[in-house]
Amino acid sequence: MERTIRLALAYDGTGFHGWAAQRDPGVRTIEGVLGDHLERVLRERPTLRVAGRTDAGVHARGQVVSFVSASNVTPERLQRALNAALAPEVVVWQASQAPEGFNARFWASAREYAYRIDTGALPDPFTARFVWHRPGPLHVPSMRAAARVLVGEHDFASFCRHPGAGRPTARNVRRLTVTRSGDRIEIRVLANAFLHQMVRSIVSVLVAVGEGRFTPVDVATILEARDRAGTPTLAPARGLTLERVVYGPRRVSR
Amino acid sequence: MERTIRLALAYDGTGFHGWAAQRDPGVRTIEGVLGDHLERVLRERPTLRVAGRTDAGVHARGQVVSFVSASNVTPERLQRALNAALAPEVVVWQASQAPEGFNARFWASAREYAYRIDTGALPDPFTARFVWHRPGPLHVPSMRAAARVLVGEHDFASFCRHPGAGRPTARNVRRLTVTRSGDRIEIRVLANAFLHQMVRSIVSVLVAVGEGRFTPVDVATILEARDRAGTPTLAPARGLTLERVVYGPRRVSR
Repeated sequence: MERTIRLALAYDGTGFHGWAAQRDPGVRTIEGVLGDHLERVLRERPTLRVAGRTDAGVHARGQVVSFVSASNVTPERLQRALNAALAPEVVVWQASQAPEGFNARFWASAREYAYRIDTGALPDPFTARFVWHRPGPLHVPSMRAAARVLVGEHDFASFCRHPGAGRPTARNVRRLTVTRSGDRIEIRVLANAFLHQMVRSIVSVLVAVGEGRFTPVDVATILEARDRAGTPTLAPARGLTLERVVYGPRRVSR
Repeated sequence: MERTIRLALAYDGTGFHGWAAQRDPGVRTIEGVLGDHLERVLRERPTLRVAGRTDAGVHARGQVVSFVSASNVTPERLQRALNAALAPEVVVWQASQAPEGFNARFWASAREYAYRIDTGALPDPFTARFVWHRPGPLHVPSMRAAARVLVGEHDFASFCRHPGAGRPTARNVRRLTVTRSGDRIEIRVLANAFLHQMVRSIVSVLVAVGEGRFTPVDVATILEARDRAGTPTLAPARGLTLERVVYGPRRVSR
């Protein structure tokens, strides 16, 4: 009998070329190593569904993956086997049987990312893998004013690598906050879904605002332009972490 | 004119075989990489003095190094050059000219180490490099009672790799605290000086007390035995960080 299994993952993405498996087997990816070890335990290679695909160097605290399997291996044994092979770099912190038809990607109603910036003069070896070290102060109130411009349902074509002609670029940003604690700044974004490079693009624009290079009005202009040309260089991957995936009220499949 | 330079270092020790340079140039050490880059800037290879030598895999937040140099390179330029080459893995967070005769090792009046334990069921990829993941609860009040046994001037021969016949093994532990925050336990030790593997040995014994395998009275017996035979396996290096080196009132050299 086929069952749907759901895994919740956390990982340090530093040593990975992102989520998506690559043709070149020498390129290490989360999907690749997870698939390899699942195949070893299940004796079949499942097709993985994921909410919150990550790019090279991006981390995850609450990524959700699902797959269908005919194996009778329990989720607990699967979790133990994966952690024995992959922890602490990749940790499966939850494994369970999911309702029939569950698809980690399509059932997700929202994703939340956090981007961490260290504005101190010198980098910190203890957090360096997970933050962007960008020395010098940032004006947080202006960044918050600019963030408010982006909240809501908008066409985010200016804030992504365009998915291609005809593919929709509207997304609903439900919350976008900027908080500071000493030299550390954290930008959190909750949206129904994200475009490719969307968070790092938003961060680069908010940092430009914090530096006084852009005003919140400039951000409105960039948004309306629906063209990436006017945006600064993408913020580096290391500062980005997929924090959680939200699953709303149970969806009826079809 | 010769000057004495003082550097304060922080580093992630995961990728290093400890402080001390090895004969084999393929073995990466802090002293080795620091010496290599200092030599490039100073055009001479200085002899480094250090307070708080670290073993393989041990980290530092406040290690202090000194050396004498005839170069007229400013400490600021030295710091920039070293950080450009080594950060964020190794960060020189302070560089200054020290009083004549300053020796980072011999002028130090105390060192403080912290040892971090994660007792949660699963490891955490975001802190794994800097903590010992040892799942399962520990009884902290008993660990504190055992810690009190070790505070003061004692012969710590049972808590070290013996330095050799005739070498003294008495040390003065000024403070030894055990604190808990959720699943995390931190053990901090402040002493005038430390023997080789002393903190990791103390931690292994305190953890055995927290597990109920030893009582505080057993710890007194171990201390009095002046023999390492009765102690558990050393706690792993990754949980240990040299936090700071204390320099007391200026010492008159000689």
